[in-house]
Amino acid sequence: MIDCDVHNQWPSAEVLLPFVEPPFRDYLARGELPGPPGAFPHGHRPWLHPEGFKRSDVLAPEEGDTNDHYEALRTQLLDRYGLDYAVLTGEEAIEVSTLANGRYASALARAYNDWLVAEWLPRDDRLRGSLVVAPQDPEGAAVEIRRLGGHPGMVQVLVSTGSERPYGDPFYAPIWDAAAEVGLPVAAHLGGQGGINANPTGCGPPTFFWEAHALFIETGMGHVASVIAHGIFERYPGMRFVLIECGVAWLPALLWRLDADYKALRKETPWLKRLPSEYARDHIRLSTQPFEQPEEKGHLLAALEAMHGREVLLFASDYPHWDFDDPMTIDVPEEWRDAVFDENARTLYRLPGVTDLARAATA
Amino acid sequence: MIDCDVHNQWPSAEVLLPFVEPPFRDYLARGELPGPPGAFPHGHRPWLHPEGFKRSDVLAPEEGDTNDHYEALRTQLLDRYGLDYAVLTGEEAIEVSTLANGRYASALARAYNDWLVAEWLPRDDRLRGSLVVAPQDPEGAAVEIRRLGGHPGMVQVLVSTGSERPYGDPFYAPIWDAAAEVGLPVAAHLGGQGGINANPTGCGPPTFFWEAHALFIETGMGHVASVIAHGIFERYPGMRFVLIECGVAWLPALLWRLDADYKALRKETPWLKRLPSEYARDHIRLSTQPFEQPEEKGHLLAALEAMHGREVLLFASDYPHWDFDDPMTIDVPEEWRDAVFDENARTLYRLPGVTDLARAATA
Repeated sequence: MIDCDVHNQWPSAEVLLPFVEPPFRDYLARGELPGPPGAFPHGHRPWLHPEGFKRSDVLAPEEGDTNDHYEALRTQLLDRYGLDYAVLTGEEAIEVSTLANGRYASALARAYNDWLVAEWLPRDDRLRGSLVVAPQDPEGAAVEIRRLGGHPGMVQVLVSTGSERPYGDPFYAPIWDAAAEVGLPVAAHLGGQGGINANPTGCGPPTFFWEAHALFIETGMGHVASVIAHGIFERYPGMRFVLIECGVAWLPALLWRLDADYKALRKETPWLKRLPSEYARDHIRLSTQPFEQPEEKGHLLAALEAMHGREVLLFASDYPHWDFDDPMTIDVPEEWRDAVFDENARTLYRLPGVTDLARAATA
Repeated sequence: MIDCDVHNQWPSAEVLLPFVEPPFRDYLARGELPGPPGAFPHGHRPWLHPEGFKRSDVLAPEEGDTNDHYEALRTQLLDRYGLDYAVLTGEEAIEVSTLANGRYASALARAYNDWLVAEWLPRDDRLRGSLVVAPQDPEGAAVEIRRLGGHPGMVQVLVSTGSERPYGDPFYAPIWDAAAEVGLPVAAHLGGQGGINANPTGCGPPTFFWEAHALFIETGMGHVASVIAHGIFERYPGMRFVLIECGVAWLPALLWRLDADYKALRKETPWLKRLPSEYARDHIRLSTQPFEQPEEKGHLLAALEAMHGREVLLFASDYPHWDFDDPMTIDVPEEWRDAVFDENARTLYRLPGVTDLARAATA
């Protein structure tokens, strides 16, 4: 079993200090912070969660070694559920996308990546990393992807779904070029709703957190349409785009609209050779969390079938956040379980198969 | 059969001149226009349809009496399909929402409404009107709703889905108060993506028209969440909110998210007494066009069932626009047809029943 959205936390963003190069070390050590010392610099969402984001049973700073979030993750997730792999997605690192100063944002992303490589990946063979970049600095992001994209522990490039523009936009071409060159998929994780990024919904700012949270999928919908329309998958036939923490059930309705509108007006995008839904099936992957739970399971099942869920879905728990999905509660068809809980991620991220692992153990 | 989205066109916005009061008549007659003389003042979408919006078989200005769009509508729609009623939604009138000057926007809305009452409603007993208001001027909108909301030909208050804020926001309270007072539902029709209104998608501006058009539903999603979360239907138990031209299949996935997030964080909105999906079933109505057409009809049917489509859906053709839905092609379950094509609209808009019509004819 592979969990595709596990948040490796820090006790304080000050852990990044040794990894931030000058002059940006001064920004973090002495400069303005959006909170007390240890806060991570980002333009915070104006929609504030009234209960906080973390599960209450997750290691609190006062409980012993404040640096050891890994131990909590190991016992509460890796060992408890017998995971083969956990794909780490950072905690606030993707929020670098909200900063106006793209160079500082890239410096923070580099520091996070180096901290991940130094402090997390060596601790457990089951951990894999996501290479965080600052999308508002496409050239800087491309340099970072080429610098560290070949690291054997890194399995994807990671940005927030909150963005200035949809990710198919030519503005981001350097990121796609670099990701294709190093052979990594590009993933967007729900987040980055603030700062320089676009309002995350289509009719102005919602008011309440639960209202806003339900609507944050609109950020993901726009990226799906954009990467397809701009021909990312014609330009890079091996590319995959992964959406993390956006839920799944909205995808078919969007693809039906995209197919209908494309059929009527395909002359706008002559580089496309297939229907939007066909690109989605082969090139877009969605992590399952937060998995929808309607009263009538059949209604969800129809949506899962319509999106070819057996091929498209990747199990994710979102550990240790408030809306954590227990793998025991994800209700996909029995004959899909191996694909959704393991094989799709293993293929996407080129993780050794069970057979390979057994061979390595006896080598 | 009742068609809930029929566009009554004008040959030129100059038809409004006799109905625009000073000083705004000068704005329209001598002032700046976003096009040649006769253009309607609005902040136009930056997403330009590469083929134009109108069906090519609809009356062109060179074909005879340029004022008589009614005749085309009568032969091509009312008579052809044997409609009992057509709910007129204007052509560009809802685009007043895009103007920075709310007072001018309200003056144009008033002129449109008076033109509708003078030139359209008297021509055919089958026509009903929508009272267009400028939502960026809530007090002016409320005055207009009270001025003309009691007209027997007016069946709803109408705004664009493009907006500065979601419509549950307290900013719009005067509009809801007035609509409740005159006993009209409030409808939002797809449009208003430009000018002062919010970017219509959640991750920045899309590029192509077909891409953008597929995503414009994000404006409607935000309003559904907002009017529920802010308790519009607790404050006005008889109120209905109608979404026009947003399609339908995305609604269940949104409601599943809203229900889950509300259940977790309901303390944010203590005035709510029911689940978001329960409010939606009783108080939200969706017009059918553009009706989704997936390859597997069963997938759409599951979505229709999940949204209680028999109660929620209102047939609409969007005549005479490019993506017109022929009523013969709308594939809802046979036992739903009377409700979707007639009864739901008849109840919502308090239109005389067939029996009442027969009685009137023989009186």
